[in-house]
Amino acid sequence: MKKIEHIGIAVKDLELSCSIYEQLLGTGCYKKENVSSENVDTAFFLVGPNKIELLAATDKLGTISKFIENKGEGLHHIAFEVDDILQEMDRLKAEGFQLLSELPKPGADNKLVCFVHPKQASGVLIELCQEIKLGKEC
Amino acid sequence: MKKIEHIGIAVKDLELSCSIYEQLLGTGCYKKENVSSENVDTAFFLVGPNKIELLAATDKLGTISKFIENKGEGLHHIAFEVDDILQEMDRLKAEGFQLLSELPKPGADNKLVCFVHPKQASGVLIELCQEIKLGKEC
Repeated sequence: MKKIEHIGIAVKDLELSCSIYEQLLGTGCYKKENVSSENVDTAFFLVGPNKIELLAATDKLGTISKFIENKGEGLHHIAFEVDDILQEMDRLKAEGFQLLSELPKPGADNKLVCFVHPKQASGVLIELCQEIKLGKEC
Repeated sequence: MKKIEHIGIAVKDLELSCSIYEQLLGTGCYKKENVSSENVDTAFFLVGPNKIELLAATDKLGTISKFIENKGEGLHHIAFEVDDILQEMDRLKAEGFQLLSELPKPGADNKLVCFVHPKQASGVLIELCQEIKLGKEC
């Protein structure tokens, strides 16, 4: 794993939390994106080599709504950047980790993503993510 | 703020979680340290420019014990690296953020640290940390 790509934070009100994190981090949100497959609106901030992703539910039955209902607003997941998500998924499966999907899925911010079950990571939802590269490399 | 210095994860059993995170991250723990002022044992892992800090309580009344009792094991705080912690504390106070101490305190891993109240950061406990530089700079 190369670095922490981003930290996901579950919030109730995306606009309110955006203005809080703009003040806190001293930098503006650089991207807002709806991820319809996950029923979330997201907002991203850059902090050096890392990102903060705010996540607000767009429905009342999705994972972010349930998370906030159970635990309140706060830290939701860590995403680690990997070079080859399929290779890393194979490595983790061989180590005995349970992945939440058999194949990587399209995520926010131009990524292929996969999650490790939090029960196997001391209660932490772990995301692997690989940048989707467009076009052919020469 | 320069980068995410580390993510703190509250765990029940430091040895068990250390072995899980060694497998998950594919790298060994590089440092274990007791922070007596916070009643915690800590273990650190490097992931590129970032770190993961596992935190286990050494008493039943401290903040990590209470956190696990209320929310279970999992993500506990984000620490951002800053160049000048006093200057950053002043900036945040001027923005209206409530800091949990008037002055920076010695933290784990050779740092001066200060925390922002989670109620003002969408439920996230935010740490600022500055490396303690030993000796004089020429």
